[in-house]
Amino acid sequence: MKKGILERLDAGEVVIGDGGYVIALERRGYVKAGHWTPEAAVEHPDAVRQIHREFLRAGANIIQTFTFYSSDDKLELSGNVTNITGQQINLAACDIAREVANEGNALVAGGVSQTPVFSGSSSEKEVKAVFKKQLDVFIKKDVDFLIVEYFEHVAEAEWAVQVLKTSGKPVAATLCISPEGDIDGVPPGDCAVRLVKAGAQIVGVNCHLDPLTCVRTVKLMKNGLEAANLKAHLMVQPLGFHTPECNHTGYLSLPEFPFALETRAMTRWDMQKYAREAYKEGIRYIGGCCGFEPYHIRAVAEELAVERGFLPPASEKHDLWGKGLELHTKPWVRARARREYWENLLPASGRPKCPSMATPDA
Amino acid sequence: MKKGILERLDAGEVVIGDGGYVIALERRGYVKAGHWTPEAAVEHPDAVRQIHREFLRAGANIIQTFTFYSSDDKLELSGNVTNITGQQINLAACDIAREVANEGNALVAGGVSQTPVFSGSSSEKEVKAVFKKQLDVFIKKDVDFLIVEYFEHVAEAEWAVQVLKTSGKPVAATLCISPEGDIDGVPPGDCAVRLVKAGAQIVGVNCHLDPLTCVRTVKLMKNGLEAANLKAHLMVQPLGFHTPECNHTGYLSLPEFPFALETRAMTRWDMQKYAREAYKEGIRYIGGCCGFEPYHIRAVAEELAVERGFLPPASEKHDLWGKGLELHTKPWVRARARREYWENLLPASGRPKCPSMATPDA
Amino acid sequence: MKKGILERLDAGEVVIGDGGYVIALERRGYVKAGHWTPEAAVEHPDAVRQIHREFLRAGANIIQTFTFYSSDDKLELSGNVTNITGQQINLAACDIAREVANEGNALVAGGVSQTPVFSGSSSEKEVKAVFKKQLDVFIKKDVDFLIVEYFEHVAEAEWAVQVLKTSGKPVAATLCISPEGDIDGVPPGDCAVRLVKAGAQIVGVNCHLDPLTCVRTVKLMKNGLEAANLKAHLMVQPLGFHTPECNHTGYLSLPEFPFALETRAMTRWDMQKYAREAYKEGIRYIGGCCGFEPYHIRAVAEELAVERGFLPPASEKHDLWGKGLELHTKPWVRARARREYWENLLPASGRPKCPSMATPDA
Amino acid sequence: MKKGILERLDAGEVVIGDGGYVIALERRGYVKAGHWTPEAAVEHPDAVRQIHREFLRAGANIIQTFTFYSSDDKLELSGNVTNITGQQINLAACDIAREVANEGNALVAGGVSQTPVFSGSSSEKEVKAVFKKQLDVFIKKDVDFLIVEYFEHVAEAEWAVQVLKTSGKPVAATLCISPEGDIDGVPPGDCAVRLVKAGAQIVGVNCHLDPLTCVRTVKLMKNGLEAANLKAHLMVQPLGFHTPECNHTGYLSLPEFPFALETRAMTRWDMQKYAREAYKEGIRYIGGCCGFEPYHIRAVAEELAVERGFLPPASEKHDLWGKGLELHTKPWVRARARREYWENLLPASGRPKCPSMATPDA
Repeated sequence: MKKGILERLDAGEVVIGDGGYVIALERRGYVKAGHWTPEAAVEHPDAVRQIHREFLRAGANIIQTFTFYSSDDKLELSGNVTNITGQQINLAACDIAREVANEGNALVAGGVSQTPVFSGSSSEKEVKAVFKKQLDVFIKKDVDFLIVEYFEHVAEAEWAVQVLKTSGKPVAATLCISPEGDIDGVPPGDCAVRLVKAGAQIVGVNCHLDPLTCVRTVKLMKNGLEAANLKAHLMVQPLGFHTPECNHTGYLSLPEFPFALETRAMTRWDMQKYAREAYKEGIRYIGGCCGFEPYHIRAVAEELAVERGFLPPASEKHDLWGKGLELHTKPWVRARARREYWENLLPASGRPKCPSMATPDA
Repeated sequence: MKKGILERLDAGEVVIGDGGYVIALERRGYVKAGHWTPEAAVEHPDAVRQIHREFLRAGANIIQTFTFYSSDDKLELSGNVTNITGQQINLAACDIAREVANEGNALVAGGVSQTPVFSGSSSEKEVKAVFKKQLDVFIKKDVDFLIVEYFEHVAEAEWAVQVLKTSGKPVAATLCISPEGDIDGVPPGDCAVRLVKAGAQIVGVNCHLDPLTCVRTVKLMKNGLEAANLKAHLMVQPLGFHTPECNHTGYLSLPEFPFALETRAMTRWDMQKYAREAYKEGIRYIGGCCGFEPYHIRAVAEELAVERGFLPPASEKHDLWGKGLELHTKPWVRARARREYWENLLPASGRPKCPSMATPDA
Repeated sequence: MKKGILERLDAGEVVIGDGGYVIALERRGYVKAGHWTPEAAVEHPDAVRQIHREFLRAGANIIQTFTFYSSDDKLELSGNVTNITGQQINLAACDIAREVANEGNALVAGGVSQTPVFSGSSSEKEVKAVFKKQLDVFIKKDVDFLIVEYFEHVAEAEWAVQVLKTSGKPVAATLCISPEGDIDGVPPGDCAVRLVKAGAQIVGVNCHLDPLTCVRTVKLMKNGLEAANLKAHLMVQPLGFHTPECNHTGYLSLPEFPFALETRAMTRWDMQKYAREAYKEGIRYIGGCCGFEPYHIRAVAEELAVERGFLPPASEKHDLWGKGLELHTKPWVRARARREYWENLLPASGRPKCPSMATPDA
Repeated sequence: MKKGILERLDAGEVVIGDGGYVIALERRGYVKAGHWTPEAAVEHPDAVRQIHREFLRAGANIIQTFTFYSSDDKLELSGNVTNITGQQINLAACDIAREVANEGNALVAGGVSQTPVFSGSSSEKEVKAVFKKQLDVFIKKDVDFLIVEYFEHVAEAEWAVQVLKTSGKPVAATLCISPEGDIDGVPPGDCAVRLVKAGAQIVGVNCHLDPLTCVRTVKLMKNGLEAANLKAHLMVQPLGFHTPECNHTGYLSLPEFPFALETRAMTRWDMQKYAREAYKEGIRYIGGCCGFEPYHIRAVAEELAVERGFLPPASEKHDLWGKGLELHTKPWVRARARREYWENLLPASGRPKCPSMATPDA
């Protein structure tokens, strides 16, 4: 039987998360931008199964159910699918995640994200009912643990934690916030304290900002917990994009969001730096969010291979630091088969008419 | 029964090719960079099937067998797989391609690419034997037509065309050359003439350079054919990367090749410009090569939807010109749901320490 | 008789400083980089007189004596001139400054800057003696007021203020510090308080960082003074270069310093933004330092022409916001004769291989 | 008595030209952009004398009279000065140029540039009369030789050469054209042939494009002359700006012209490369045009110091390759006192929101 998420983290293991699904599946043709809902779990299970497998193969220890934004209020708003319910999606997503997790040493995490009802005038009771409905599926399908993710308001995340906590399963909670705090101005340290007090055993951030910024925010959370004499495991699942000019509104404010983000995509070498930095700060649940493709997760696993004691399966197709290029036909490409080359390269954009920084819209 | 490739082109139809496999599958974890061989067709057929499906869904009318560099001499050199033969790979690849092609109105194209034996001191007979061995599989599996692709020397491509021609199936031939000509300095117009004289009914270029440069090269081919009073259909399958500084050695010379090309990746809007430009020049077989992801092919299909009379299946998850953003939660993102916005955006790189152009290594 | 500096500032007038001398005269051929000493006042008085005149004509109300780094210890160290003493330079510089100031409504300011003896192990007495020697010349030549400028240590600047204060002439003091504080970590607010307590009636910053950063530092000084219930006039004489990546060590740490700063040079339109911003923050002595050419000072004067009630003499050769282009021979250049054009232009670097930000050396 | 221009060139000497006047004096406050007329020769002779001196000191062997666009038709059109005639300007300009030339081993060159009457419907006779009027002054003031410069139409330049030729003085002729040819499409080689046949002993290009592009154009001229079995000395006086994206319309088409060109300014190291390249191509009259400041000319003189056997006077304030930095106070700046550092530096723009290339307006 597999060790649970808390057993792993308590034992000091590095747990590698999976990458982002909605952006990756939008590009593969299965998710609609602007809606970002996961009906593909029902409509195209093969596509979802395949990307789960790629992350597993890249080294992920966690397969998150493809249930982002899968609450009925959100699905209705988006109007994307008329004849599929949130419950159907969530059930299907759990089955696919479990099938793939069983192909390796991975756990299934059931995820809930922020809801439109919160932003409206709904009561705590109404909002919690939305999370409860999703939780029922996760309990029925017996996921290994639960993730509260992509919340801009710590207040809503607290409610989600409180609901999920009732299941008795471990709960991780990540906000999509910046070092400045949540969207209401609550500092990261305070957010962490509130989430832990609400019952989360793992806290951190996901999405909205680039890896090093997210690591910085988690560090502020850690400081807040220490100051409050609280203990929790730390987790980070950042964007796979460079966002140097973003403020607390994150990459949604970038003019390039969501259809021209290509040029901001991180390389595998950027990811190795990120993994190292996260590890140094004591974060042990290290994954990705929007912009992470399978090879980015593999880079995280490769960077931490010594600490973890093994390489991921997909490294059979990737020699560390570009060593595989030694067999390339061109001599100047063979000359790139070494760490110093890739570690120090500053890639050109190939776009002489484009600036390096944009003015965020908000 | 489906119309063949020549029937379609003769009728003036736009035929959309599929995208690149080796770079995309490297990132998904199934191909090793530097080797670029297609053993995944045997090792991980699900992964190959899935990406074929994504291209089909994105609008591709052609599914190319995943047989790039799949000649035994190349496989042996790369040393990547010891217990799988080129024949096994090619047989498996044909089956997968056929399975997916049958899910839509697509044809299967069997492809051969340049061989290490040519660059060595081998005779015409030896080189042709390599192509013949691959052709035998394509005949056995009854592919719909054949593609000679990724040849730097028109001389070697001529031999390949001559071999494939013996099958009686239509033959397309694309070189990976620049407007300056092939690696031996043969101008594009002369290359086209030689390929048509060797028996190709479709000629053009693939890989190595960005879309507009490749269109320019095909135009030079067209001019060459006209001057020689020859007729052939035109085809283009360029890189999905910006390569403004490249010369005839193509993107292999860029310092970013192959592990830091992210920032050069084209957006879907870049692809719409490319599709329009290719169409204007009279090219009717329009696809992609390295760097093309499914959404890039969808963008080609969407740009030419009026000319073709229909949208691809994956457009159910993509409203034209970002219209789907009208449902986004943030008002400034909703403001981006229009053509002028995306058509004129110059995306920032998010990388202030990176230049916009590199110095090619060769 | 002309109004003194304090009368002007007390009356709420905007006083415009002159621009930088050492970088400008280095490019004209009269100052040696690395030494940055002002022997040209003796060797080439015409060249010094001419640039003074250009700043006067551009709108400067102050002509600073060209006496930067003109202490004997510094001159000896630099070894640049063997037969000219600091006293000779200072005497000559005062005469030239007075001659030009008399050609307009300008005052002469005698300036002292930080000394090598301070960085060594010298006592307060020794350091003060260096300033006293320079002051003697300024008194003899009866300059209108004194400026303590380009000090990295507020401690040394205090000593300089104390010495200059003995003359009974008004004293202005500007440090070359960042918002982080002086080189010893003393915050800007504390620096301002110490300088005012030492006797300065005008305080602020000069050199080392770009205009908006310097304005930010002066604002911190203002806050410090308010918190301490002290009053002083505010002054700013920033770099004329963009330095977004610099920290407290300033532009000396940029790889481009001092021979490749061209691309960072500010446009006249950048300067108008700077002048407006400085004015908004309550700064009334607004000038420039290294990188400011005469047209930059003219831009400051033009931006504040309404507040001051007049344009500078050199505006006879410069129509506001490019209006003079209406007479250009090319129609597309004529189309640029308007404010919106220049205010919104983001100038291209013309250097595709250069990044937008550098890594400071310190 | 000084050797004449032809004696020098015939003897194989490198003759260094002076730099650009109108852009430099616009920034100093004496020329109005859009008009670009030289009334400062009368209004502010000190300013003109000083910049002449700076170029002389930087190594210039030629002092061009400050008579650009100084024909009455142009002055009238510009409406810039109502009470000064072209003749007055030209007389004054000759006197100033002679005074400075006599301070060193320099020659005075009287210059004429293209005229508005040509672009209108005027006859050859009318156009030639304009040149004749200017020539009369040059003869009266006995300049050493004549320069026909900044002509977009070789046809007009031919007329100018024919007129100036009547004086018996040597005539140099430079067009402001690109490698594509003059504004009417006459190729550089043909232009050169026509100018030599009209009587010019020295031919080349000036202004409009960056140094290496101009050298390329002169090379095409050289080839044209060789093909025609004609002999002439070669000359180049390019822009001091990077203009990689410009076509035959030159930098006037850049969005940055003329008030935001700062970031395109070349460094002294760029100039050394230019000087070397020009020398290699056999060009022996090497100077500059718009954007050249005195230190740029000094860099040309320093690069060719070995070939010429001496350094210019201003090099007393400039140690080769930054050697003077050895005395800088900061250790990391001292580390820059070497050739490899400056030769390989790619300067950052300090402008993250600016692109590296612009779209020319024409």
